[in-house]
Amino acid sequence: MSRATENSFLPLDIGSFREESKAVIDFIADYYKNIEKYPVQSKVEPGYLSSSLPDSAPYSPDSLEDVLNDVNDSILPGLTHWQSPSFFAYYQASSSTAGFLGEMLCSAFNVVGFNWISSPAATELESIVLDWMAKMLKLPSSFLFSGTGGGVIHGTTCEAVVCTLAAARDKAMKQLGGSWDNITKLVVYASDQTHFTFQKAAKLVGIPPSNFRFIQTSFATEFAMPPQLLRVAIENDIQSGLVPLYICATIGTTACGAVDPIAELGKVANEYNLWLHIDAAHAGSACICPEFRHFLDGVELASSLSMNPHKWFLTNMDCCCLWLKEPRFLIDSLSSNPEYLENNATKSNVVVDYKDWQVTLSRRFRALKLWLVIRRHGLENLMRHIRSDVELAKQFEALVAKDERFEIVVPRRIVLVFFRLQPKHGVDGGELNRKLLDAINSSGRAFMTQGVVAGIFAIRCVVGATLTQEHHLKDLWSLIQEKARLVLLQCTQ
Amino acid sequence: MSRATENSFLPLDIGSFREESKAVIDFIADYYKNIEKYPVQSKVEPGYLSSSLPDSAPYSPDSLEDVLNDVNDSILPGLTHWQSPSFFAYYQASSSTAGFLGEMLCSAFNVVGFNWISSPAATELESIVLDWMAKMLKLPSSFLFSGTGGGVIHGTTCEAVVCTLAAARDKAMKQLGGSWDNITKLVVYASDQTHFTFQKAAKLVGIPPSNFRFIQTSFATEFAMPPQLLRVAIENDIQSGLVPLYICATIGTTACGAVDPIAELGKVANEYNLWLHIDAAHAGSACICPEFRHFLDGVELASSLSMNPHKWFLTNMDCCCLWLKEPRFLIDSLSSNPEYLENNATKSNVVVDYKDWQVTLSRRFRALKLWLVIRRHGLENLMRHIRSDVELAKQFEALVAKDERFEIVVPRRIVLVFFRLQPKHGVDGGELNRKLLDAINSSGRAFMTQGVVAGIFAIRCVVGATLTQEHHLKDLWSLIQEKARLVLLQCTQ
Repeated sequence: MSRATENSFLPLDIGSFREESKAVIDFIADYYKNIEKYPVQSKVEPGYLSSSLPDSAPYSPDSLEDVLNDVNDSILPGLTHWQSPSFFAYYQASSSTAGFLGEMLCSAFNVVGFNWISSPAATELESIVLDWMAKMLKLPSSFLFSGTGGGVIHGTTCEAVVCTLAAARDKAMKQLGGSWDNITKLVVYASDQTHFTFQKAAKLVGIPPSNFRFIQTSFATEFAMPPQLLRVAIENDIQSGLVPLYICATIGTTACGAVDPIAELGKVANEYNLWLHIDAAHAGSACICPEFRHFLDGVELASSLSMNPHKWFLTNMDCCCLWLKEPRFLIDSLSSNPEYLENNATKSNVVVDYKDWQVTLSRRFRALKLWLVIRRHGLENLMRHIRSDVELAKQFEALVAKDERFEIVVPRRIVLVFFRLQPKHGVDGGELNRKLLDAINSSGRAFMTQGVVAGIFAIRCVVGATLTQEHHLKDLWSLIQEKARLVLLQCTQ
Repeated sequence: MSRATENSFLPLDIGSFREESKAVIDFIADYYKNIEKYPVQSKVEPGYLSSSLPDSAPYSPDSLEDVLNDVNDSILPGLTHWQSPSFFAYYQASSSTAGFLGEMLCSAFNVVGFNWISSPAATELESIVLDWMAKMLKLPSSFLFSGTGGGVIHGTTCEAVVCTLAAARDKAMKQLGGSWDNITKLVVYASDQTHFTFQKAAKLVGIPPSNFRFIQTSFATEFAMPPQLLRVAIENDIQSGLVPLYICATIGTTACGAVDPIAELGKVANEYNLWLHIDAAHAGSACICPEFRHFLDGVELASSLSMNPHKWFLTNMDCCCLWLKEPRFLIDSLSSNPEYLENNATKSNVVVDYKDWQVTLSRRFRALKLWLVIRRHGLENLMRHIRSDVELAKQFEALVAKDERFEIVVPRRIVLVFFRLQPKHGVDGGELNRKLLDAINSSGRAFMTQGVVAGIFAIRCVVGATLTQEHHLKDLWSLIQEKARLVLLQCTQ
């Protein structure tokens, strides 16, 4: 290992950059090679790391070898291995060589493209890739730069929701005459299945928590938001003198993968002049395939749409695409032009300054990795990727459905299989399935998480880790059966 | 180049991962080797990129070779080269081999550490490194996990300010009895030099823009916030029935590098029970050196402090450290616990779940890169890094001061030299210096930006790019003199 930094302090010496980076590439390749040897969910105890690391920074440099040894001995055991082929929890953070290469280039250039002039390529590639992505999803041209809209890459859906909520809020406040007092009249709508960060985002932008409406879902609609209940809630609020503002609809909810009926919700939104945002964080990726595109039917009625390539689109964290039909409302709400950022390009009004499309000023060149993912795989392979995961999920669902000890709680829409052991012998279904899930996860051989709908606790198996192959799902099913036998046995004793 | 992904669709094949990653490392090393050949500020015209890229995604994969050729031919010319040794604009985004290696590991593990269980190492390393960093800055133990406080890594200062504003807001609303109507009474304070994103953040969390107070600064205090004016503003607001909430103080403002008097502002904050946040985004790095630590005197009176290692601490984008004396107020404001994230570790209440310390749910394992930067350099070299940049800035300031055509507009505090050509021959100083700055930047040989204080337009030269050496500042000074001669000549013609 080079000791350049120790002797002469050259923090970016080209020789040692090359040598050390390649050593780390080998370290990472070995990690992937051995990834199935680690328990998927980390088994460490809270506070484990403080016993193996010093409690203050070293005065003199440590060698790269020492650092990598510590990564191996102290960090890896504390990771829950999201890249493991037996990771079926939450929604995945899928990665790929192409995504990794894009992250490397982003980190190496390390440009901060807050406005066009601070790195024109960062802004322009982002706009172009957002249009590419929009075309792959067959979005109407009203969401494209080449049409009348436009898009931006945020870190996460929560950021996209915060920004569009702020845009909708400020648009409404202006229409209401400009007094800030009206903020307490604004009402937002979601279903009781909508991701919890929606509430967090709404509260963050100053919407009173008493003005959050959660439209009740049920088995009758497979936990999709019923448009008629939304309409009733809006009417009630109008009659109370409140101002309905924003609806968050979801394609692929977190707990059970429900899909809200976009076209019908869009009609309600347009009738009452509400901002309709579509959160397609996970399932959006599937919509590049013609057979799944119908989930987006009605998208032309929405104001904005977001999806996260960092979930199921092989793009390393973090990357959330947000498209808007009228970006000017976002810009009205979020822009400012201090003297120290003044420049001729901005003044000319022909460029995009992405600082005005997001919460923060600084931003990474995230478009690079999405561009690499698309180019290195092509639409062809990206569709193949989606389809093979859906096929695996379908096979897994069939295995579960065939075993009469189990039940599919909500039918699979895409790649989330939502199932449980049927309650038996008077044992509470929640307790039974919590025990089963604990037994599976603590085996270290797979990792799944849970969801609760209509009071029913069930296990979520999501297919989507990059390295998952057919045999990993067969192994998972064997593991589930093995642990189910034990858990059921305990209950009858 | 491997064609694995073309033939068999293995998006994370270990062989091609290794091979392609090393090819990109070589590409990046060559970029650094040639970085001085590019114009520092990109010379492309708006819309340049759309002419060289197709307007939709490829159906079949492109080879890595083709992609890298496009990066070379189409992306590099559109970059403003933040890693160039002749980049003296804004505040830098300094990087290092160690920071890059940390980013690689982060991207490769690609874990999403929203709560402890989702990757214990990600949470625990972050807490440990935040304590390391706090000790390097000699923060009181009230900001450390090993004391009674704690810290978190955000992406940027803006995010830190949004979150602490929300925490302060919700704390105050509770104290006021819980009615959301009180949001319109809350008042926030900053100086007229405070970064513009403070206003953006305050508006984002629902503080009425009419309740933003900008305390006027002047040459008399070298543009630091005068505590007595702050006190007057607070008293006025209280008399008007408003509720003073939050002060944002800055160590190293953006325009001219002013340093607010923390101890005196802290006294005012504590007297009136306001949340005092210290934004030390850039200059915080200097405070690891004993001779600059005095900027933080009085920090024990603050509620929170943020600084960005991604600016001047050799840590690749993005990384903002935020410490809080009472993290519970942040958690009270930002936490939520949906059923699908339930887990025993969270229930035990002995772990940190960082999702409750930030806007978003998802988060990258950013602590790795800061840990690598600290370990690979050691406090010793990190101080050397700061000191050598300060020394270069001092030398440059002396060159400017010695030339009687120029003036130092505001004395240098750390590494920002704020200077201008003196107005002459009846030519407006703003016009003269705009012309000079344009001439310098369009030469492609260096890049600086401007600031305006008390109506005076001046040029900012910030020293801090990783690759900058003494001769780059000498070259800059020659360039400035060359262009000044021309500009002055034009004015007298």
